[in-house]
Amino acid sequence: MTVTVALDGMGGDNAPAEIAAGAREAASGGVRVLVTGVREQLEPELDGAKGVEIVDAADVIGSSEEPAAAVRAKPDSSMVAACRLVRDGSAEAVVSAGPTGAMLAASLLQVGRIRGIARPGIAAPLPADDGPVILIDAGANVDARAEHLLQWGLMGSEFMRGVMGVERPRVGLLSIGEEATKGNALTLEARRLLETADLDFAGNCEGRDMFSGRFHVVVTDGFAGNVLLKGLEGTAAMVVAEVRRAAMSSTRAKLGGLLLRPALRGLRERIDPDTYGGAYLLGLRGLVVIAHGNATRRTVANAIRVAARGAEAGVVDRMAERLAGDRPGSDLQAPPAINTVPQVTAPEIGDQ
Amino acid sequence: MTVTVALDGMGGDNAPAEIAAGAREAASGGVRVLVTGVREQLEPELDGAKGVEIVDAADVIGSSEEPAAAVRAKPDSSMVAACRLVRDGSAEAVVSAGPTGAMLAASLLQVGRIRGIARPGIAAPLPADDGPVILIDAGANVDARAEHLLQWGLMGSEFMRGVMGVERPRVGLLSIGEEATKGNALTLEARRLLETADLDFAGNCEGRDMFSGRFHVVVTDGFAGNVLLKGLEGTAAMVVAEVRRAAMSSTRAKLGGLLLRPALRGLRERIDPDTYGGAYLLGLRGLVVIAHGNATRRTVANAIRVAARGAEAGVVDRMAERLAGDRPGSDLQAPPAINTVPQVTAPEIGDQ
Repeated sequence: MTVTVALDGMGGDNAPAEIAAGAREAASGGVRVLVTGVREQLEPELDGAKGVEIVDAADVIGSSEEPAAAVRAKPDSSMVAACRLVRDGSAEAVVSAGPTGAMLAASLLQVGRIRGIARPGIAAPLPADDGPVILIDAGANVDARAEHLLQWGLMGSEFMRGVMGVERPRVGLLSIGEEATKGNALTLEARRLLETADLDFAGNCEGRDMFSGRFHVVVTDGFAGNVLLKGLEGTAAMVVAEVRRAAMSSTRAKLGGLLLRPALRGLRERIDPDTYGGAYLLGLRGLVVIAHGNATRRTVANAIRVAARGAEAGVVDRMAERLAGDRPGSDLQAPPAINTVPQVTAPEIGDQ
Repeated sequence: MTVTVALDGMGGDNAPAEIAAGAREAASGGVRVLVTGVREQLEPELDGAKGVEIVDAADVIGSSEEPAAAVRAKPDSSMVAACRLVRDGSAEAVVSAGPTGAMLAASLLQVGRIRGIARPGIAAPLPADDGPVILIDAGANVDARAEHLLQWGLMGSEFMRGVMGVERPRVGLLSIGEEATKGNALTLEARRLLETADLDFAGNCEGRDMFSGRFHVVVTDGFAGNVLLKGLEGTAAMVVAEVRRAAMSSTRAKLGGLLLRPALRGLRERIDPDTYGGAYLLGLRGLVVIAHGNATRRTVANAIRVAARGAEAGVVDRMAERLAGDRPGSDLQAPPAINTVPQVTAPEIGDQ
């Protein structure tokens, strides 16, 4: 069965050229891609590639716009239109390199939550020693509760199993020490839930353990998660910049840098954010991949592949089953704060 | 006037040899050092060095002991004895490379808080682009309130001015975006306090901005601070290890690494934790430097120098004055949770 992925054709700094190129690359591997956007701009870039279809959308949401307001004001934007394709069953997953906040709002509003999920969470992939580890939540829920962390652990496990092929994903709890007694009020409560949940709980994960390979999924609130994620990115960038600066500082160092350069390819690939396509929003009725703004064709193709792999593995259905079997309390049914953005009036797609 | 610094002579993996060597190095620069510990072990290492005196202490607190219990059970340990030297006015600051948790408990109990300080905070120095930035709190208070962050901002400013010579320290608030509206409940409230406080508030600091040089002091709760600090350390170590691995992977790469090596000295020094001696506990009636367990003589000497510089600049008095002039609420007078460890029965020093 061919999997269909919706793609925001106008989102990101390099749209539409790199977005279209990424769609072509992914489609050549057997994924069907529905690209939303301005047909006259997309058509020349797609050049009639097999497996890629254009879905008209006249507007674009820019990075300077207030996310929720922009999503409401532009129902015919390429981003909202792409999310709608999942809502109406035309696609099983959606990818966008448009503004993160807007994509978060658009997908929460359009794609809809899995029943029983209180707070969808952003899963950010990081390069651990022997494959990726995902950090959930990377910023969608700054004031989270212990039940949310439990749900992210369950969803993250299904994601790593279905998409990354990890048989028994080890789930860690981000904290400030390995001992069960270490942490703040939130982590101490979350630990009690995780210890008895139907997942492979591997204990507390400190900030320095993210790359250790000891964990496949690490859960935390969106504040600590976002602070850590950006800290890791910033540090890697700082150290790489220092190495580069050193390699330009003298003739001897320049020669050393040239000789060492090929061997450093592994490091470059390891810390390259393009490898996994972007961050994944888990908890909705379709996989959502939020690629960074300067996504290249490689980023986009990888994002589509990840989304397709998740759809093929039925990750969303498996998450729903998992949550149904491990529902800790009735309060999870309460309408969560993240979903209080007024509902977008959603016209049908392709209506122009 | 000569400044006197108390030094835990038996704390850390390399005690007493490296600790004593660090004391000698710092003393040769004009600081008076009181080293606590077992005289027979310290005397041969000190070799009659000028400016260094031994204060007898029979016990040692080990890294496997429960911190608060060990501090209570061992009033005659080198660590507790060193803290007591500040309490009784014999020294103006104290340095230890013993177990962090125990040193935190010992100094909170023995040195005593500055009047008006609700929660002493751990300030961890990090290598920003144009000098150090301190992150407060790096782990002492996992569930903090906005008023605590304000106090850390004020104390951090005085520390950076007095010890690091920064005329107008810029204070940042760790958050998940630059906009004032970004953050969790704690940061939103803390931002309101910081914006109107008598300090140079420079806005929100994201995890990636720690090294930017835009801030001299960054405040956050002890959970996020500890997670970020360990994340930064772990990432720097991971990237450096990858570069080293690459430089061993082939003959060509080995030659490149050899040629590049001298130019990388700047990076090594920048991320070397020895440079600033350790983390600083701010809010007590004497500066407290907590060095890491495998501190070398260089770490210890630097720690003593930082402590002496702070004492010379009267940083503790300046913090006290600053806090007296900017006291936001009466609730700060309430006994804080961090200080509820039962009081150690404190015999006089040198009583054996």
